Parts: sequence; C-alpha cells; structure tokens
Amino acid sequence: MQRFVQKQALKPSTFLSPVPAVMVTCGDPEKPNIITLAWAGTVNSEPPMLSISVRKSRYSHGLIKKTGTFGVNLVSQGLCWETDFCGVKSGRDLDKFQATGLTCVASPTLKIPMIAESPVHLECKVRQVLELGSHDLFIADIVGVQVAKSLMDHKGTVDMRKADLVAYNHGEYYSLGKILGFFGYSIAGKDVLKRRRRT
Amino acid sequence: MQRFVQKQALKPSTFLSPVPAVMVTCGDPEKPNIITLAWAGTVNSEPPMLSISVRKSRYSHGLIKKTGTFGVNLVSQGLCWETDFCGVKSGRDLDKFQATGLTCVASPTLKIPMIAESPVHLECKVRQVLELGSHDLFIADIVGVQVAKSLMDHKGTVDMRKADLVAYNHGEYYSLGKILGFFGYSIAGKDVLKRRRRT
Repeated sequence: MQRFVQKQALKPSTFLSPVPAVMVTCGDPEKPNIITLAWAGTVNSEPPMLSISVRKSRYSHGLIKKTGTFGVNLVSQGLCWETDFCGVKSGRDLDKFQATGLTCVASPTLKIPMIAESPVHLECKVRQVLELGSHDLFIADIVGVQVAKSLMDHKGTVDMRKADLVAYNHGEYYSLGKILGFFGYSIAGKDVLKRRRRT
Repeated sequence: MQRFVQKQALKPSTFLSPVPAVMVTCGDPEKPNIITLAWAGTVNSEPPMLSISVRKSRYSHGLIKKTGTFGVNLVSQGLCWETDFCGVKSGRDLDKFQATGLTCVASPTLKIPMIAESPVHLECKVRQVLELGSHDLFIADIVGVQVAKSLMDHKGTVDMRKADLVAYNHGEYYSLGKILGFFGYSIAGKDVLKRRRRT
C-alpha cells in the first residue's frame, strides 16, 4: 500500500468509486422510459431509502417529477450493452424498450414500468427533491422489492453472487471479481471463517 | 437474461448493489477516527458533491456534526481487512489508526485527517444534513481531491484501474473483475472501439 502514499492534488471532481450502474425506469407503463444512472446510492436502512441524482434537462427528470415514482433495475453483465445505450440516448428521441428489445412489466405495488430481464427490481416513491446544482437529488422510499427466483435457494435465501452485477469505475463498466471477505471477517472467530469459506 | 425474468416479492430493504466501500475519516488530526461506510454516493457533478449516511448512534456522527467536515478515502484491495475492521469497531473504544497501523496525514485544504495508504482522498465540507430515520444524510461539497501519483502517467492522466478498488455487494467485499465496456461504447464507431481496445 506504500505505492499510494505519494499524492498529487487535482481539481475537485466526482471521484467516488466504484459506484453502481442502474437502469432507472419511469413514466406510464404505456409510455415508459429508461435512464441509466451511476449517481445512485442507499441513504437509509429503516425505513429503506435510496437516492438518485438526475440532471434537470433529462427527459426522465420530468417524468419522475410528474409521477413521483421510479423503478431501480439492477444490472447484470448480460444487460451491460443495454445499460450503456440507455445512458447515452434520450427517451425524447426513441422508445428505449423498443430499441433495446427489453421487456416492460408493471411492478406489483406501484405499477411502475420495470425491465423484466433485470435480476432485482426496487419500487421507489419520491419523498423529497433537493436542487443541488447540475442535478436534482430524488430521495425515495423503497416500497417494493422483487428478486429473480433463480437467485434464491429452496429456503428462499438470496444469493446475489448469481446476479452477476456490474459496477462503474471512472467511465468503465466492470464485472465483480473475486470475493475478498465478508462483513465482519476481520474480527470473526475460526469457526465462522471455516464455515464461510465453504460457501 | 431470461433466467432473471421470474420474480418473487420480498420485504422492502436496501437492495441497491454494488455500492462503494469507503473509509470516512473525521475529527481533529490529533484525535482522528475512521468509519467504514457503504451508504455513500455521488449526488452532483457541478459543483462536485457526494453524500454519506451515518447512524446517529455512531461515534463519527458527532465528530462530523461538530467539525462540519469529513474525508473520503477510497479503498484498494490491500486495505480490505482494515476497511472491515473500521466498520465493526467503534472509535469510542479504540484508536483505529493505532489498531490498524494506518498512517494519518492532514489534508492540504481543510486539514482533515486522511489515510495515507488510500489511493484517493476526497476532502468534504458538509452543506446540509437530512434526518431520514435510522441514518442522517450528510450532503457535502467535494472541495479537495488528492490522487496517488502511482495512478498517473507522465501526462498526468489518472488510470483508476491501477487503484484496485473494492466494491461491496450484499455483505461481501469484491475486487473489480473484467472490463465490460466504456461509457458510450454501445454507440461508438469502429475507430473508437479499436483505439480503446488497445488501452
């Protein structure tokens, strides 16, 4: 780690990394849109909440303001091309579901358009909007979660390793690599370490 | 991707993934603390801003409220053990710099305690605090950025691949795996694709 000690100051910028890459869905199920965002994060545990930041100029900004709802669709490796495409094209110019061949389904709780092929759906209801500058921050309650059955074992335990999720790092999409540890491994006893190593 | 289509509803929870794992530093440089957070994200581009969510009960919560500043230290694979340790131990009970052997340095702009071994430092100044429930959301301006010289080439271009960053996915720490594409690759011309493939 000594190789990182010598530093150089740069102009302040958005250097936090890695960040998620998610496809956010919005609008009516009859006229849905998809926008890819990396400025997204969990902000509260109880109740579960997340935030997304969207530029005012984006087509989806108006749709989310209007309905007060949006969907977060997690991105697996097989959806990487579609994710990039939905981040560089505007829903003003084309129907992104049609252009990508992705399947639109209405979510069970809030009837938000969702991407059927995504491994995890989060139904979000906007609680507050903060104008920060270039972006508006939408803080939302997570009111519904649907997970692919193929990620669950017979007991209903979710194994997110099977979701093959994508991370975004400084302009590039990455697969997740090797597992380095689990939460608490630095103070775990030998028994726990042995049991976890088997999974 | 068909394997993800069949879904099952779960109790709403914080399912957004992957998320960053960062070591947040706070307090006086003479009595500094480190807290590991995954509830962190970029929230604005111009001016550059990020947010972190911290439980009120955490020792660092009071320190950040008092100074109005904190540091974000990005986490490379070589810091994974220390990152986990700083997420499960409290600064009320021990000096985490001493316990981990990490080196504390004062940041150039705001004199925030930073972790010398981290590849990237972000100096943050709190703009607003929102009480959301279990967590308080600290929205902050990024007023200083320092990057390890070993991540830069002779022109000063930063290569974040060399930072070996860690992502957090549903309770586990991961390395970043293979590069799946770059922002805009889905609509890039042949020339661009060819040039990028060489890097």
